[in-house]
Amino acid sequence: MDQRIANDSGESFLTIEHWKKRIEDALAAPDAAGPIRNINGEDQREFDAIFVGGGAAGRFGSAYLRALGGRQLVVDRWPFLGGSCPHNACVPHHLFSECAAELMLARTFSGSLWFPDMNGRITSIKEVVDLFRRGRTGAHAIMNYQSKEQLDIEFVLNAPAQILDAHRIEVAGEVIRARALVLALGSEPIRLDVPGSALKGVHDYTTLVETLDYEPADTVVVVGGGKTAVEYGCFFNATGRRVVMLVRNRLLDIVKDGETRAYAIDRMREQGMEIFEGATLTALIGDTSGRVARAVVETPAGPVEIATDFVFAALGERPHSQAAVEALGVAIDEKGAVLVDEQMQTSVPGVYAAGDVIGAPMEMFKARKSGTYAARAITGEKVSYKPADWPDFLHTHYEVSWLGLGEEEARARYRNVVIVKMPPDNPNGLDIGLPASDRTMLYAFARPRLSGFQKVVIDGDTRRVLGAYHVGYGAKDAFQYLNVLVRRGLTVDELGEMDELFLNPTHFIQLARLRAGQRELQNL
Amino acid sequence: MDQRIANDSGESFLTIEHWKKRIEDALAAPDAAGPIRNINGEDQREFDAIFVGGGAAGRFGSAYLRALGGRQLVVDRWPFLGGSCPHNACVPHHLFSECAAELMLARTFSGSLWFPDMNGRITSIKEVVDLFRRGRTGAHAIMNYQSKEQLDIEFVLNAPAQILDAHRIEVAGEVIRARALVLALGSEPIRLDVPGSALKGVHDYTTLVETLDYEPADTVVVVGGGKTAVEYGCFFNATGRRVVMLVRNRLLDIVKDGETRAYAIDRMREQGMEIFEGATLTALIGDTSGRVARAVVETPAGPVEIATDFVFAALGERPHSQAAVEALGVAIDEKGAVLVDEQMQTSVPGVYAAGDVIGAPMEMFKARKSGTYAARAITGEKVSYKPADWPDFLHTHYEVSWLGLGEEEARARYRNVVIVKMPPDNPNGLDIGLPASDRTMLYAFARPRLSGFQKVVIDGDTRRVLGAYHVGYGAKDAFQYLNVLVRRGLTVDELGEMDELFLNPTHFIQLARLRAGQRELQNL
Repeated sequence: MDQRIANDSGESFLTIEHWKKRIEDALAAPDAAGPIRNINGEDQREFDAIFVGGGAAGRFGSAYLRALGGRQLVVDRWPFLGGSCPHNACVPHHLFSECAAELMLARTFSGSLWFPDMNGRITSIKEVVDLFRRGRTGAHAIMNYQSKEQLDIEFVLNAPAQILDAHRIEVAGEVIRARALVLALGSEPIRLDVPGSALKGVHDYTTLVETLDYEPADTVVVVGGGKTAVEYGCFFNATGRRVVMLVRNRLLDIVKDGETRAYAIDRMREQGMEIFEGATLTALIGDTSGRVARAVVETPAGPVEIATDFVFAALGERPHSQAAVEALGVAIDEKGAVLVDEQMQTSVPGVYAAGDVIGAPMEMFKARKSGTYAARAITGEKVSYKPADWPDFLHTHYEVSWLGLGEEEARARYRNVVIVKMPPDNPNGLDIGLPASDRTMLYAFARPRLSGFQKVVIDGDTRRVLGAYHVGYGAKDAFQYLNVLVRRGLTVDELGEMDELFLNPTHFIQLARLRAGQRELQNL
Repeated sequence: MDQRIANDSGESFLTIEHWKKRIEDALAAPDAAGPIRNINGEDQREFDAIFVGGGAAGRFGSAYLRALGGRQLVVDRWPFLGGSCPHNACVPHHLFSECAAELMLARTFSGSLWFPDMNGRITSIKEVVDLFRRGRTGAHAIMNYQSKEQLDIEFVLNAPAQILDAHRIEVAGEVIRARALVLALGSEPIRLDVPGSALKGVHDYTTLVETLDYEPADTVVVVGGGKTAVEYGCFFNATGRRVVMLVRNRLLDIVKDGETRAYAIDRMREQGMEIFEGATLTALIGDTSGRVARAVVETPAGPVEIATDFVFAALGERPHSQAAVEALGVAIDEKGAVLVDEQMQTSVPGVYAAGDVIGAPMEMFKARKSGTYAARAITGEKVSYKPADWPDFLHTHYEVSWLGLGEEEARARYRNVVIVKMPPDNPNGLDIGLPASDRTMLYAFARPRLSGFQKVVIDGDTRRVLGAYHVGYGAKDAFQYLNVLVRRGLTVDELGEMDELFLNPTHFIQLARLRAGQRELQNL
């Protein structure tokens, strides 16, 4: 039976505006809204695959399978495709990180030029969260529009699905069969597990945007030392609050170049962030209303208590694999990730998996690509996918982007490592107005040490670029393409041959060119 | 004789801070400061080349020649290497464009979040110009430091040079000989040539930063319709002033994709810019103090007079070739550009030229690269350089970046052009919060139509990317590397294979991936 969603006039073409309303209604009252079906009754074929979960993996896998001419169904408990990223994960993080960057600028220039006096001023966290919450259905609506009108994807949304076996699910009261299942179940934040972690005011990135209903006071405790902890911590700091970061091991261990990592962390400290490494949160103590009031912490210097009404935990994510284990017995690893081979096949014949549920790296590129590879494998193509050598980034108040080897790793592996960087080693240290480029120009002229840091790591023997690191703005996008060139063997001479768009955030091209004539490369 | 500049303690190593003071002193009193020499008396070789002019072409050419093991001298009338770019051209433009972007953001969110009330508020132009003027010697100092301590360049600065013949110049009272000369004389803005153009208050990008000594009132007239006119015009507009742009032909004709150009111009108009195309400034009329008071304009709708005390002309640049023509008789074209072959040789044997003096494109990449190619040719290497297929950009309140063919050009040349863009064609038009990425997140959530525009132009038959266009922020750097990939034949399938750093300013990777499975590519 044809089960195509229609608008109020019975037309099957739905505008983005229509979707927005439909999604808002369904989020407000899921049961009343009921399942949202887009199933093409004219297509009599069996489904080649059902994607269980409509996040990045499920949606991109679906799009790819349709593009290849196959028939797919994607199901999700939410009334939209796109998953957690636009709903409570990467998109709000980007909004908050944008606020962090803008607030650092405003605080740096407080009371001068057109900037307001920010001295002692605490800005609202809740207002930004509310801005996100009001706007996020817009992104959902676009993805539903694109999925239906442009990508011709079949779906059942706003309906939890139950996996019955390797070929069948039950959703919205119907049993649907397919040649293959693709588990695209995503992940969820690892919850804090200390006495008091159920108190009001204890958040992770999902509950922050779903439930924050008060304005946090002037002290925030952040638990964690990875990307998410730093990204949210820097935002809270930029709002003018005291931020104490409790890091079990080492802050930002993910940034493998020591100098780059130090530059990023030094700037965080300059902005006033308090960082305890080797620290463990042992308990949270509430007030009489049930809200967190104090954090009890073990630090290398002894126990500390911090008065706070807002604790943010960022302890990583856990693959959302349990339902699939129970229904199908798929094999998982010790972290709960569904085990797949390079064709995205699980231990159960006919069952594939993609996205966060297959474990690290829990990044968008891998979610999307593993979804498309699953689709290709299901259509019979011989494929092989295993993420390797991807570029990466995080936000502090800056964007920090990297690819390839850091200096220390490179020196361990190569005998003749050459470094090209900005600022150069010099007696003025960071107090020079370079690098300069879009979004660091005001710093470059008024507060040079804030204008960023960048480095290229080169093998002097082969002249190949081994790694690139950047703290600043506007380089993140470039690293996607630069990484491809580096994997293809990019040399310092080829870098110098490129045509820069000056002032360019990555000064790599011109810096390489200044050295490219040398037979024996030297540092710069 | 060794003529190495030393610091006050007689040490030859000069810090950036030392250079800063030395340059400031020399700019304030050039004659008192006298020539700044860094000549290595221990090197007994004849100079392989003298670079006449120490801007990008002369400095990069010098660095390359030194890197190759040759001996060079670079001379400049200014007390610093690096030329006009950091002194009055690309660097201030970037600072002003940063202010334009930040001010647009502040005005959009006026009185909300942490943004000040910008309603009716005019912010200072002079303050930003002064900020630049105070800070620019920092960039000069870095380049002198890098040139001397890291690149081992020999130079005579703060001394005008006279070209004597194809092998000799006179500078600072000495005649110096070399095997070759490289003319790296740069360019200068074409001056406005109408009655009244000598009035006070009539500026171009050089005089703006050198001489502005008053705060312009509330109306600015900009003459020109190219990159520089738009970049400065948008800054003036963002300060809250009325800006009238007088464009002889067509605004931003340089942006070859019609939809991209329209998006950029529509946003300029939304910000309140008044644009007269087909308009000619016929006269400027002064007040009794000799300052401009009115602009008299012929428009297609008839004559107009505009009251203003600040006129900014951006009519392009003229190669600074006259001295070389007079001294050497080098051949030039009708625009005054020194003619060179693909080895950077002029019509006079032994005389090379590089940078703006050889004409369009007067861009940094060409200045630097032509300088390095001249150096390579002089050392006997067989080289060939002719700029082609470079990526490009300009600033409105946004960054506008592009490479390759626009849609219209592509359709004229290819039978099966496929377009992938964001926002997609849809009944909601631009009122959707995509694209979204760093620096457009607040727009994406609160004013979606301001969140940018992007497009990839693809040949559906070969699946190759023909062009890419972007209005937003953070894509400019990427276009440098993406352009290399496109020139190497990048396909939509290869694009889809890349690892994106989500949210990425160029959504090209994921959009391509949504289509990459199709045998017959379709628009998206």
